[in-house]
Amino acid sequence: MKLGNVIVGQSGGPTSVINSSLAGVFKTAKQLGAPVVYGMRNGIEGLLEERYIDMSEYIKGDLEVELLKRTPSAYLGSCRFKLPTYEKSPETYDKIIEVLRKLDVKHFFYIGGNDSMDTIKQLSEYAKVKNITDITFMGVPKTIDNDLAVTDHTPGYGSAAKYIGATVKEIIQDAYVQPINIVTVIEIMGRNAGWLAAASALAKGDDCPGADLIYLPESVFDIGKFVQKVKDIQKDKKQVVVCVSEGIKTADGKYVCESAATSTMVDSFGHKMLGGTASTLSTLLAGELGCKTRPIEFSTIQRCASHIGSLTDVTEAFLIGAVAVKAAAEGETGKVGVFERVSNKPYLVGTSIYDVNAIANVEKTVPKEWIINDGTGLSQEAIDYMSPLIQGEVYPYMVNGLPKHIRLD
Amino acid sequence: MKLGNVIVGQSGGPTSVINSSLAGVFKTAKQLGAPVVYGMRNGIEGLLEERYIDMSEYIKGDLEVELLKRTPSAYLGSCRFKLPTYEKSPETYDKIIEVLRKLDVKHFFYIGGNDSMDTIKQLSEYAKVKNITDITFMGVPKTIDNDLAVTDHTPGYGSAAKYIGATVKEIIQDAYVQPINIVTVIEIMGRNAGWLAAASALAKGDDCPGADLIYLPESVFDIGKFVQKVKDIQKDKKQVVVCVSEGIKTADGKYVCESAATSTMVDSFGHKMLGGTASTLSTLLAGELGCKTRPIEFSTIQRCASHIGSLTDVTEAFLIGAVAVKAAAEGETGKVGVFERVSNKPYLVGTSIYDVNAIANVEKTVPKEWIINDGTGLSQEAIDYMSPLIQGEVYPYMVNGLPKHIRLD
Repeated sequence: MKLGNVIVGQSGGPTSVINSSLAGVFKTAKQLGAPVVYGMRNGIEGLLEERYIDMSEYIKGDLEVELLKRTPSAYLGSCRFKLPTYEKSPETYDKIIEVLRKLDVKHFFYIGGNDSMDTIKQLSEYAKVKNITDITFMGVPKTIDNDLAVTDHTPGYGSAAKYIGATVKEIIQDAYVQPINIVTVIEIMGRNAGWLAAASALAKGDDCPGADLIYLPESVFDIGKFVQKVKDIQKDKKQVVVCVSEGIKTADGKYVCESAATSTMVDSFGHKMLGGTASTLSTLLAGELGCKTRPIEFSTIQRCASHIGSLTDVTEAFLIGAVAVKAAAEGETGKVGVFERVSNKPYLVGTSIYDVNAIANVEKTVPKEWIINDGTGLSQEAIDYMSPLIQGEVYPYMVNGLPKHIRLD
Repeated sequence: MKLGNVIVGQSGGPTSVINSSLAGVFKTAKQLGAPVVYGMRNGIEGLLEERYIDMSEYIKGDLEVELLKRTPSAYLGSCRFKLPTYEKSPETYDKIIEVLRKLDVKHFFYIGGNDSMDTIKQLSEYAKVKNITDITFMGVPKTIDNDLAVTDHTPGYGSAAKYIGATVKEIIQDAYVQPINIVTVIEIMGRNAGWLAAASALAKGDDCPGADLIYLPESVFDIGKFVQKVKDIQKDKKQVVVCVSEGIKTADGKYVCESAATSTMVDSFGHKMLGGTASTLSTLLAGELGCKTRPIEFSTIQRCASHIGSLTDVTEAFLIGAVAVKAAAEGETGKVGVFERVSNKPYLVGTSIYDVNAIANVEKTVPKEWIINDGTGLSQEAIDYMSPLIQGEVYPYMVNGLPKHIRLD
């Protein structure tokens, strides 16, 4: 089946490879005959304001496609717009369909994480109820958090994991350099799922002792036990390196960073905005141990450091965009492109599509059995799962000493 | 002249390329006939405890030399040992000479910044006074801070500047993605000299709007004016990106971060240890503007991110180590290897040696005339100075998806 007009949007927090998925949707849609591929500016939020572009006017050839694959963050702009339910705001749905009809769009693609998959779920359900059979709605997974259900992993995670592994390795080189007692506490993103902090375990190898302690939000964080463990490690060596998820919680369900009167801002999805876990723990340790401590926060750098992108991730992000487009061309709707892993060594992975209802609003955390050493380390199984996702390099096009990007505005 | 035994040490905060200078000293010393090249463990501090290695036992061939050039932080370990004056501690000097005599060392090299050059100054003066004519003392410059006098620039700065330019570019991509008012405040190292924060100006180009405001410690920071400037920028656009040196001070001479009761630890050189400037300003702006703000601290990552090393920097770091060794072979002592720039376009640079007395304990700051726009930007002259230093890439040897390092312990 030949494609009709396509519209594609990006949503949620950006990643290093969300633009590679955009490139995959765009290029495949054009190859499958889509007359026009529109891009929503700032996702649904822009669509409702009728802000969109004809992507062919900007992405004119392979150079732009390749630049897009190497440009971090969302080329079209993103949003954190939570689509209200139909019951609450039928006019929002009517407006979306009105804009799609105006552009004669037949295929709608939304690249995003959990919340964005909810958008696809609601739009495809709405279409079903309203008997709109000539527009398909497909999700393309994206999130550095790797917390989407069903899919083996999510595009964006591999590049973030590669950045985290490489940078933790470099920081450990730095941390061991002075002959003094020092504890380095590295804070890594991850509200409820510890996949990103788990990637710090990849740093360990012949040439690196690795982090001494890694804490994920999947385990309860015991402050007293933590201080004792650091003390125990200091009996053997001066330098201690700790990696923590921003979202680690104590037994009372409170975030560790909440004890330090840090930000209590809430984003538009009602998620508590975190920060300061490393600072909180560093200050605590400095008081308890009387030694130098150093907090390091990877902050947004970990989601946009495309200068050390994973080839596997960039390639797969493109591929899963293409998979969604092909499925739409075959008439599928209300589905999401997913990865199915066949084996770790060699790394073999297949692609498929899956009902969005099984994915939207479901959070996949790190399996409990992968978290070992009393909640302070990752099992070999975890390493074997993560390692293939960081393989290979996509170096940026360097111009005048810096990575070249492509930019709309 | 054929070299006698050599000893080399690394001191102060590590950089991405301090090991490239070590490689330059080692390889050149061996080429010029040094029977043994010793490495001090943890600089002078280790030397006084008679901790050293025979480098040939570890660096056996070109592969190790190349790995050394690509490994961040100080391979031999570093220290922050401030050599006391001879008057205060003659026994320290006697002990150093005793160890050098024991190892039959004829040439002493110390790779470091301001404080390390003071070590070379004092040791060479001591040798002169004591008529020790058969041991030379040479400094090899190193510091990401770029604050050494006489030399056009210091090895370590170029790679840090490249990391800063690339990462600021990526963060700007990320910062512009949401259609909301947001101020991103990036904190960059630099206590008294703003060279590193200045490098954020390199991010601006055809494909990047650049940081809106850049503040260096060379200018007095006025909090009221700063808030007003951000407000003014927000009249035109939603996203504002600010880059600040950690060491910016208000008119009363206080660090901006001191207003937030942050760390007041002091290192062994009596330097106040800073941190929290970005957090302080972010919190301030959130209160004043009522919008989202995001502090990002590059922390130690900026000095160890050898995964995006500058080829110019790595090459020059090796070269300046070689220059120091050649000069020592010609009988020079109490000198430091320096760079002399001939032109920016094309970038032409020569090397030379210079009296350590002109360099030790002198701090070179960013010229006032390079700081423009009421203390919020850098001139074209500044850009032209910095740009050549970030050119070219030295990619790490990637093994299993991560940079391979070489490690002593």
